[in-house]
Amino acid sequence: MLKAKQVTIIGTGLLGASLALALRAKGYRGRIVGVGRRVQTLDQARALGCFDDLTVSTAEALEGGGNTGKGGSGKTEGGAGGDAHLVVVAAPLGHFREIFTKIAQGADETLVVTDVGSTKASVCALAEELLPDSIRFVGSHPMAGSEQQGPTAADGGLFEGKPCVVTPGSDTDERAVELVKALWGLVGMRLIEMAPAGHDRAVALVSHLPHAVAVMLVKAVTVDGGEVLDVASSGFADTTRIASGDPGIWVDIFQTNREAVIDSVGKMIDELDRFKKVMVRGDSGALKRLLEGAKEARDGWDGASKRR
Amino acid sequence: MLKAKQVTIIGTGLLGASLALALRAKGYRGRIVGVGRRVQTLDQARALGCFDDLTVSTAEALEGGGNTGKGGSGKTEGGAGGDAHLVVVAAPLGHFREIFTKIAQGADETLVVTDVGSTKASVCALAEELLPDSIRFVGSHPMAGSEQQGPTAADGGLFEGKPCVVTPGSDTDERAVELVKALWGLVGMRLIEMAPAGHDRAVALVSHLPHAVAVMLVKAVTVDGGEVLDVASSGFADTTRIASGDPGIWVDIFQTNREAVIDSVGKMIDELDRFKKVMVRGDSGALKRLLEGAKEARDGWDGASKRR
Repeated sequence: MLKAKQVTIIGTGLLGASLALALRAKGYRGRIVGVGRRVQTLDQARALGCFDDLTVSTAEALEGGGNTGKGGSGKTEGGAGGDAHLVVVAAPLGHFREIFTKIAQGADETLVVTDVGSTKASVCALAEELLPDSIRFVGSHPMAGSEQQGPTAADGGLFEGKPCVVTPGSDTDERAVELVKALWGLVGMRLIEMAPAGHDRAVALVSHLPHAVAVMLVKAVTVDGGEVLDVASSGFADTTRIASGDPGIWVDIFQTNREAVIDSVGKMIDELDRFKKVMVRGDSGALKRLLEGAKEARDGWDGASKRR
Repeated sequence: MLKAKQVTIIGTGLLGASLALALRAKGYRGRIVGVGRRVQTLDQARALGCFDDLTVSTAEALEGGGNTGKGGSGKTEGGAGGDAHLVVVAAPLGHFREIFTKIAQGADETLVVTDVGSTKASVCALAEELLPDSIRFVGSHPMAGSEQQGPTAADGGLFEGKPCVVTPGSDTDERAVELVKALWGLVGMRLIEMAPAGHDRAVALVSHLPHAVAVMLVKAVTVDGGEVLDVASSGFADTTRIASGDPGIWVDIFQTNREAVIDSVGKMIDELDRFKKVMVRGDSGALKRLLEGAKEARDGWDGASKRR
């Protein structure tokens, strides 16, 4: 169970609103408070019926947690276990500096903070820089999403069975780590613990590289004009689907994981160059081995992910 | 309507068996004869109930068409319009030489032959080389498929709404072209006429390049080990789905469209290099323009394909 008297979700878009829905669906009984930037988004989030309170003020949301009196103040208990106040930053990476600054200003000493950012080393460094020592920060990357956005697309089952990487630092309080794991575990995620830099290298390969590839595949296909798309079919549809993602969000993701992304794109160029050389040589044996190796790795992963 | 007394389908795998099902579903009343290589596949095709006859012998299938007497022999009528015998080669590209040779041996003078091969210039050249002048050949590429294979995966709705490229040569008999178009039109396909070489350049971009990219993306992601796949999620799943396709079939496709594939892979390498340079420069404006341009092209295509 999740031993927290309040979960404050900063950002009530798809992920934040889905998290609130999922927590309620799984029986979480503490307070859920949402912080949004726009009144319209807050109204949409309110209509979901899973938030106890919604506000545009981070300070107000954090105060609320200290003052409800439900389960004690938490200050005497002092641990993340009993009745902690958990804050989840579910906003685009570009807003993290501003949000962490506001959290630092409104801080309650039992605060445990986590996030949903797609890169972790830069987020953890920002938390280290901006949050006082009294706040325990544990980075998270719940790997769930959708092309749809906003609270109207919220789905309480969004996290079910998906991987969530939790990235504690070497000196992060163990109880804070357990609390954050309990949060994602409660909504059905498969937990993986990694160091921030290791996470960033891994997602550069499995998430950021596919995105860059999908985007540049659309570019390569249409470089001499879009008429060829008249004969495009399901293969093109699948491989380029994620190129429809939000450009602003992806600029942030690529920029905050710059070196690992550059490295992974370099790997992809090397592999395509290998494919091209095999084609130029007309080496059908080598070509078949490439195709078989990729099929085996892909089928193996697919099988493993379906067994989970 | 399809004015043919018989449709002989050589190859009773997914495409061939789905075509037979679709023709029956759309009310085609002529004979449908299937030619397969293995008794097991023929038994599976027979269980579908849409073939009048199934045989391992191409000669027998072609004879059957000339001798049924349904709607006359066709020889006096002499056109592809009235009661032609239409042959559809629905086998892997690697078998085409053998199949065309057998068709030439068992030829009926009113035969119109088409195929479902994914490349067209080499297939049209092979038809020119192997088929006598009395047989009219019109290349087709119905762009429908599935990762599943064999007659047990057959689906009468497989072709519905999908593009089909028909590639007549400059001197192809117009009535033969119309007959082949009537075939694919009847099963719901959206017809596009192109020259064989133009088709090959287009599919090198929209179909063969995505396949090569999906395969080499799996390779690039796993080049230092497969553990990173533990954190792979839907983005990786979508972009690499087609890497599970049959390696043998794809070796044939790549080999028969070699130059256009090499050219399109070169374009992809150039585009990834452009992405990498933008990342190295840290030019977030240029990065955003790349992402926005790709999103616009992708969303535009998706919208257009849904309106059809």
